Order: sequence, then structure tokens, then C-alpha cells
Amino acid sequence: MQESRLSVTSILRHGLLLYPGSKVITYDGTVANEKTFAEVGARAAQLANALVELGVDRDDRVGTFCFNHNQHLEAYLAVPSMGSVLHTLNVRLFSEQLEFIINDAEDKVIIADAVVMPLLAKVLGACKTVETVLVVGDFDASTLAGVHYRVLSYEEFIAGRPTAYDWVEPESETDAAVMCYTSGTTGNPKGVVYSHRSTWLHSQAVTSAASLGLTTEDRALVVVPMFHANAWGIPHAAWMVGADLVMPGRFLQAAPLAWMFTNLRPTMSSGVPVIWNDLVHYAEENPVDFSSVRLLCGGGSAVPRALIEAFRDEFSVDLVQGWGMTETSPVCTLGIPPVGTPPERAIEYQVTAGRPVAGVALRIVDADGNVAPNDGKSLGEIEVSGPWITGSYYKNQRPESFDDGWLRTGDMGTIDAEGYLRIVDRTKDVIKSGGEWISSVELENALMAHPLVFEAAVVAVPDQKWDERPLACIVVKPGATLTAEELSSFLLDKVARWWLPERWSFVDEIPKTSVGKFDKKVLRNLYAEDKLKVTKVG
Amino acid sequence: MQESRLSVTSILRHGLLLYPGSKVITYDGTVANEKTFAEVGARAAQLANALVELGVDRDDRVGTFCFNHNQHLEAYLAVPSMGSVLHTLNVRLFSEQLEFIINDAEDKVIIADAVVMPLLAKVLGACKTVETVLVVGDFDASTLAGVHYRVLSYEEFIAGRPTAYDWVEPESETDAAVMCYTSGTTGNPKGVVYSHRSTWLHSQAVTSAASLGLTTEDRALVVVPMFHANAWGIPHAAWMVGADLVMPGRFLQAAPLAWMFTNLRPTMSSGVPVIWNDLVHYAEENPVDFSSVRLLCGGGSAVPRALIEAFRDEFSVDLVQGWGMTETSPVCTLGIPPVGTPPERAIEYQVTAGRPVAGVALRIVDADGNVAPNDGKSLGEIEVSGPWITGSYYKNQRPESFDDGWLRTGDMGTIDAEGYLRIVDRTKDVIKSGGEWISSVELENALMAHPLVFEAAVVAVPDQKWDERPLACIVVKPGATLTAEELSSFLLDKVARWWLPERWSFVDEIPKTSVGKFDKKVLRNLYAEDKLKVTKVG
Repeated sequence: MQESRLSVTSILRHGLLLYPGSKVITYDGTVANEKTFAEVGARAAQLANALVELGVDRDDRVGTFCFNHNQHLEAYLAVPSMGSVLHTLNVRLFSEQLEFIINDAEDKVIIADAVVMPLLAKVLGACKTVETVLVVGDFDASTLAGVHYRVLSYEEFIAGRPTAYDWVEPESETDAAVMCYTSGTTGNPKGVVYSHRSTWLHSQAVTSAASLGLTTEDRALVVVPMFHANAWGIPHAAWMVGADLVMPGRFLQAAPLAWMFTNLRPTMSSGVPVIWNDLVHYAEENPVDFSSVRLLCGGGSAVPRALIEAFRDEFSVDLVQGWGMTETSPVCTLGIPPVGTPPERAIEYQVTAGRPVAGVALRIVDADGNVAPNDGKSLGEIEVSGPWITGSYYKNQRPESFDDGWLRTGDMGTIDAEGYLRIVDRTKDVIKSGGEWISSVELENALMAHPLVFEAAVVAVPDQKWDERPLACIVVKPGATLTAEELSSFLLDKVARWWLPERWSFVDEIPKTSVGKFDKKVLRNLYAEDKLKVTKVG
Repeated sequence: MQESRLSVTSILRHGLLLYPGSKVITYDGTVANEKTFAEVGARAAQLANALVELGVDRDDRVGTFCFNHNQHLEAYLAVPSMGSVLHTLNVRLFSEQLEFIINDAEDKVIIADAVVMPLLAKVLGACKTVETVLVVGDFDASTLAGVHYRVLSYEEFIAGRPTAYDWVEPESETDAAVMCYTSGTTGNPKGVVYSHRSTWLHSQAVTSAASLGLTTEDRALVVVPMFHANAWGIPHAAWMVGADLVMPGRFLQAAPLAWMFTNLRPTMSSGVPVIWNDLVHYAEENPVDFSSVRLLCGGGSAVPRALIEAFRDEFSVDLVQGWGMTETSPVCTLGIPPVGTPPERAIEYQVTAGRPVAGVALRIVDADGNVAPNDGKSLGEIEVSGPWITGSYYKNQRPESFDDGWLRTGDMGTIDAEGYLRIVDRTKDVIKSGGEWISSVELENALMAHPLVFEAAVVAVPDQKWDERPLACIVVKPGATLTAEELSSFLLDKVARWWLPERWSFVDEIPKTSVGKFDKKVLRNLYAEDKLKVTKVG
């Protein structure tokens, strides 16, 4: 067989040839700006020509510090297809992490949104590899006098350049195409390097009719940020099959998202559960038209059963749960019920993390390092293998995360005989109580099923008698009141009695990480520093 | 990224884990025998254990000389997943070709249908590498006394063996998984070696929602023989996504196929146009229920417009045209209209060979070896590149078929700006008349649109004045009568006047090749030997 390369370059070429009329629609807070794939492809070529003038060469890293918009997509397509490496930077990172990441990756050029330029400028003084910043949007560069890097307007700098570029195939399909750092709740962020091959294969997997089944008839609203594991592969996959893309910019609050659902008519959308939770509560109070939607995807953290049921029962929308991580490109599993499942039993499968998509293999490894059976009971760390799963971190950080070619995910779970994965907890979040394990995730799901609970996070706190016990942190819905006793008795028939938390804290909001997950480290610290008001029960 | 292998082994494992309850239904001429994927997987393991006992080792070739049934599928899954190479033999080959192919591939074991054993036995005396034949079905081995190979019953020999096998991943994903010889109208047949990687990628491509979109909700009736380019990848793809398979055995005539459509309710089916042509004529006279069908695929030779329209207008069935060849795994293009095409214009796209599926690239190379533009006019040889396109023939036969990494297909065509490929003719079938080209395929399509024409084949014959001129060979529908003059005037407003054939021959049937294409070499020879009754017009 030919050594034809699986590459971002071939994705770019294929989408341009077959689907020049498909659309990329960027919402800027007021209006939706429409560009065709042909226009975005031409602008990607202009960007490539501009980057060459900036001295960007093969393998050089080009960072992006952007929300989701057509310019970000242009970088997605152009940078790898000119042989360089795209490095997506999370705009919600702390300064120290951002500085570390830029220096670790040695970014030469960064494309940044004007609105987050002040955050970036704060660290760039210590990032000597960065020669140029291309700013998307209006920005007054004179505020940065005396810096070592050039600041140019993205639009002005690409304007008028040739709209064609002689895109190059990578020398090897395993060459780097994109890199992204894990937000890293412990230690320094670790770089994950996606190859051309892994990006192509992951995109193809997302278009499989057996997974998300993206086609040219779809319009994908990309709520998950493009700096969060390639926006779960949706931009590349959409380009491959000619699906329209709706890019929400930084407008990820319930109200603007509701406007986009109602007016831009997406057929599918992907995002973290906290966003869908906000949106469903908003839609309970305000008119939102979800009639164009065939599929919502939730991932990044467990999707609560109550949320799936709310979308299903109130809006006839299927919310499909996926599981994966930055290290896995990310799609590993999807919570799709087996064919022929009666509708009333579908939820039993939808609340699991799902089954592997073709190409991905999973296994459970117990505390002794033995592979456990797929019996739905044996609990252990989830390990994953496949052609879009990272085999090592950049610069070989944390080699202990890899086990004989498999990635150790840091998630604990079970796999049943039908292949369905259940995530019990993060290994670092599980509560070790008297030698037994309590799943913080299951407690949270049970609590969030209460009609007056808006959000609930459960963390382990030290306990003299049991080593660790659960602390439940609760956000009640606006205007509602709830007591710890009420919630404790609500849990009675839902979890084992010895799981019932003794410690309760009613808070205004749950702190979130830069990618929208509950930040349990912050909660544990607040508790340790005695900064939470805690009620005791039982 | 991990070096995880794209392999038939992983397809086998994935289908067994996720879809143990999907079905493989084999029609034996009387009843439909149902087995689950779990049962077929267990039998594949029994076959692997049996082959080990026969001394089959890594890289050894195991031939199949079978129609489509569950045993053939068991060989598809088991042989590559034990590290050996499956070699599908065409049961319709001439003896000399069959003998050449078995010796060229050095098959060690052959799995053969009892009904074609006499054909196989005729050549095996000259095939010294073959040690064992496993016969599917009842066969009296005593008729073969004194042969150098053992003859065993497939069912008896696998019965009672362990239903598990320690399947192996290939050492490299580019290792051989399957081989298949092109029927070769000129010279000796040439071997094409499919790798584990190419088989996996092709299967995944077939499941893309942007191509055939196979899922676990499908039931695929595999009309195209499993010795014909892996049955176009349908068996592997169906296993990957848990689609039911209906295997028609050797019952490919219109009446049994009609029974299968009506009673076994397939959602999709793939086959060559001559089979669909027979079936549609049968269905015009007999009750056939196509209501379960979402998609028919036609390929192997051009699908006539009249056939697409007949299925559409009379039975509300979509007949999608694909293009490819043994050398291309085979799916390269699919005749799917662009999104938003008004229904009345869809046929304009459906009559083309279609656009490349993601992963495949096409180009037109003119007589001077230059790449021609995609303008829908520039005519030349079609060249193709991609990860499931062969890069060389087995033992480096015919290196002139490869052009700087691209496969020269021997088909002539054009590509338009939207990427649609039109096959004008085979390079060896095009008619060179007075320095200009006449497409035999276009003339055939125009003729087959006549309501009284059953089949039409056009070949070049020598002409003193023009070098070559077309000869039209016509099969009229049962009971109908037609004259050359009537057909000639029917063509008047459909093709250029100088294309009108002067020579016409009314025949009982068009000779076919072993894979169901018109055998134009036979027609040319019949004409040369003056064995056709020819009428002259104009």
C-alpha cells in the first residue's frame, strides 16, 4: 500500500476541494459573521504567507491565545499544513503556568485575542523566544512600549497577501502538528504533542456514523474552547466533511448561547456539563429554540443524570456523554446505548462514560498492577491505548504515567461485559474512608438530582477516625433554601448509608478550573484554611 | 502518540466486545441461517486453532475459494488476526489463471466450497505448496484419490476446538493482512497486498457518515463477492460497527436476491450494475419489497443513468455509484450530490463516479504526463493516491503502473471544479476515431436508456477510413424487437452525430468477466473472427 500520509494538510485540501461553500460563522457578541470554507482557506493561505515573512519555519511553534473564531480556525489549518506546529494556549491559565508553557514550547509567534492581550503581556517579558504577537481585534500596541517582541494586527498583517500557499505534507505522518498542555492540578503543566496522523485519525473517528456521525448536513456549535484538547476534534472533523461551524467567540454564557441555538440553528454542539447546566436552567426560565439540535455532547467531567434527563424531558434533546482527556485527543468513549435498547432503558447507558470508539482499547488495572476483568465490578485505574492516545509527554515528563505502552489516565472505574465504562472517580478525588472507597462523583450526581440543587461538589477531608470523610459543597438554585438535613435524608435511598457526608457547606459557587471542571483542590484548601462555613449532620 | 496498530485484529476485537449480538445471516438456497457475532467470533477462534494444527504460521498464505457465507467471514477475521495472510481466490477464474495465482501466492491451505471443488481440484495437482484443503459443505473426498494434499471437512475439522484464541497484533501495521489478484485482461494476474493498516483505514472510511455511514442499525446484504476486492470492504466495516451481514452464498440471481430483500430486510447492499439491472427488471414483473433499503451501491463498472432512475422512480431506492478497483481496496469515490442539491438535479451528480472519500486524492494526467486542471474538460488518465491505494504489485509486477507514488488506474476521465470524477472510458476501451476519442461507456449508457434495451456493450473495431469505429452489441428485453435504425435515431439527440455506430449486432447476452464486467476482449475477438452477425446502418 502507498505510504500516503494521514495529515492535517490532507484535511485542509479535502475540505477545500469538496466543500468550498460550507460556512464558518463567528459570533462577535452582536452579529454573526459568515465566511465560506473557500474564504477561510484563502485566509489560511494569507496567514501562512504572513508567518513565512515572520520567519516561521518547519517545526517552529506558533501559539494561539484565543477564543473560538474563524481566525483561530485559520491557524488550526495553516500552521500544521505549512509544516509548523500549532500550540493552543488556554486563556484561563494562571500567569506562572502560562509563562512556563510558552517557554517550555518555545513559541516563536503567538496569535492572541485583543481582549486577553493584557494577560499575555504580563508574562511575555519573561518569554524570550516570542518574536511577534499577531493580535485579533482592536488593540492599542502603544500600551506595550519597550517590549522585546513586535505587536502586529492579525487582519492588517495578512491583508493583501497571496490567497494561495503551496501546502506541504509532513515528512512523516508522525510529525508534530499540534501541541497542548494539560492544565495540571499537580506539578508543572505537561505538553501533549498531537501528530498529523493522530489528528487525521481522530477526525475520521468523529465522523464515523458509529460515533458522532458528523456530515456536511451538520452545523456544529463549538462551545468547548479551541484551546481545550483541539475543541474535542470538532473543527478538524467538520472541515473534513464540510459541516458548518458556529464559533461563539468568548460568549459562552447561557444568554448568548441561547441566542445562537435559537438563531443560528446548530444541529450539534459540544461542551462541558457546567455550561449545559447553566443553559438548561436558563432555558427553563426563557424561550430557547433547540429544535435544530440532533445531538449535544458533554464531556470534560461526568455528565449528571439529572442534566441528561432535563434536556431529554423538557427539550427533547439527546445529551450524549463522552469521555477522554487532553492526552487522548480526546474522544475515547461515547455513551451511546446498544441498538435495540428500549427508550426507557437508554438512560442506564447514557449515564456511563460509554464504550470505546473503534481504534481505542480500554482496560482496568488494579492496585497490584493486574488487568482486571470486564465484569462491571472490578475497580481500578483506567488505562487506554490507541492511535490518538499520547505515548509520552513532551520532553518525557512523568514517564510513570505510561504502563507498557498504555496511558494511565488517573481515572478510576469499571468496565462491564458489554464494554461500558463507568468512571468512579479521579484517583486523587476518591475518598478513602476506613479502608473503603467512596466515589465523590456518585455523591455529586445523587445530590445534583435534587430539584433545588444547582451544583454540588464533594471532596475528601481528613478525619481522625476514618482517615478521610466526604465534605459536600452545595450551591442552591436562586431563591431556594435547603438544609443539610434535608439533603442528607434525600440521599438515604440513593447511596450506601456509610457514604452519607457528615460535613456540609453551602457556597455561592463551586470554583472551576481553566477548562470548567470543579476545582476540588481549591475546595480542599479552603476547608484546610478554615475558610468554609461547615454544618455538621448525624 | 502511541504506535498503536491499525489492524484487522483490532477490528475483530472491537466488534466482538461491542456487538456480540449482531448477526451474520447466510442464505443456503432454502433457509437463512443466523449466527451472532459472538458465535462467528468463537468459530473464527476454532478455525485459527485448526489452522495452527495444519502448520499455518505467521505470514503463511491461506486461500479461500468460496462464495459469501459465514465461514468465509470467519476466515476474513481469523487468518489476518493470527498473523497469517488471507488470499481470496475468484471462483470464476479460468484454470490457467487460478493455477498461476495459487502458485504465485504459494498458498499453504485453501478453504473451498464443495460446489466449486471440481474446479479447484483440476489445478491443484500443479500447485505443490498447497498441503490441505478445508471443504465447506458436503464433498466426497474419495473422488480425489492419490492427490498430494489432504482434504478435510471445514466443519468437522474446526468442531470441538477451543473457542478462544490469543489473537496477535501484527509486528507492523503495514504487514500483509489480505491479498487479492486482479483478474487481468492482459498478461498474468497481478497480486495486490492489503496491509492491516489499509484494511482498518478503509473500513473506517466506509463507516464515515460522509460516505456509506454504516452503523449497528444497518443490515448489509453483501452481493458483491468476497473474492472481489474484499467485497468492497463491507464485511470488515460491518464487523467494526456491528452492522448485521446477510450473505447470499452463490444465490446471486434476481429471484433469490428478491427473496432476500423481501424477507431478510437489508438496509443497504452493494453489487455490480449487471446484478442490479437483472434485479430491477425482475422487480418490474414480480413483487419485491425494497422498503427496508436506505441505500444500494453500484460499482465495478459504470452505473447507467437509466438504472439509477429506474430504482428511484419505480422503487424509491437510492442507487449510489462508487468507483474504485482491486488496487484501491476499493472505495475511492462516491456519487453523492453536494448538500442542498435540489432533488431534480441530484441525478447530474449521481451519474458521475463521484467525489473522493476523505483520505483519497485524485488527479488527471494528460498524454504528455502533465497534471491537468480540475475543469471538467481536460481528459486524461486518472491517477489516485491514498493510504489504502496499492503502491506496488506483489513481486513488483508492472512497475509502469505507478507514477511517482500515484497509481495509474487505466481509466480515462475528467474532474470538475467541485471534485466530481467522470469516467470516460478504460484507456484500452476508448475508441480512437479519426484522431478523436469516442467513449464506449457514454454510448452504452445512452443505449441502455432505451426502454426495450436490456444490455448494451460498445467496442472499438478496425475501420479503414477512421482507424477505429464503434460496434454496438445489443441485448433486447425478452419478447421485444428493435432494429439498428430505431436505435440509431434514438441516439441522435443524445450523442455527437459522428459518434453514431455504423455497425450493430443483436446478441443473446453480453459476455462477462469473472467479476461481472462486460468482457469487451471477447466481443472484439468474436468480431475479428467474424462470429458476430453485424448489421450496417448509415
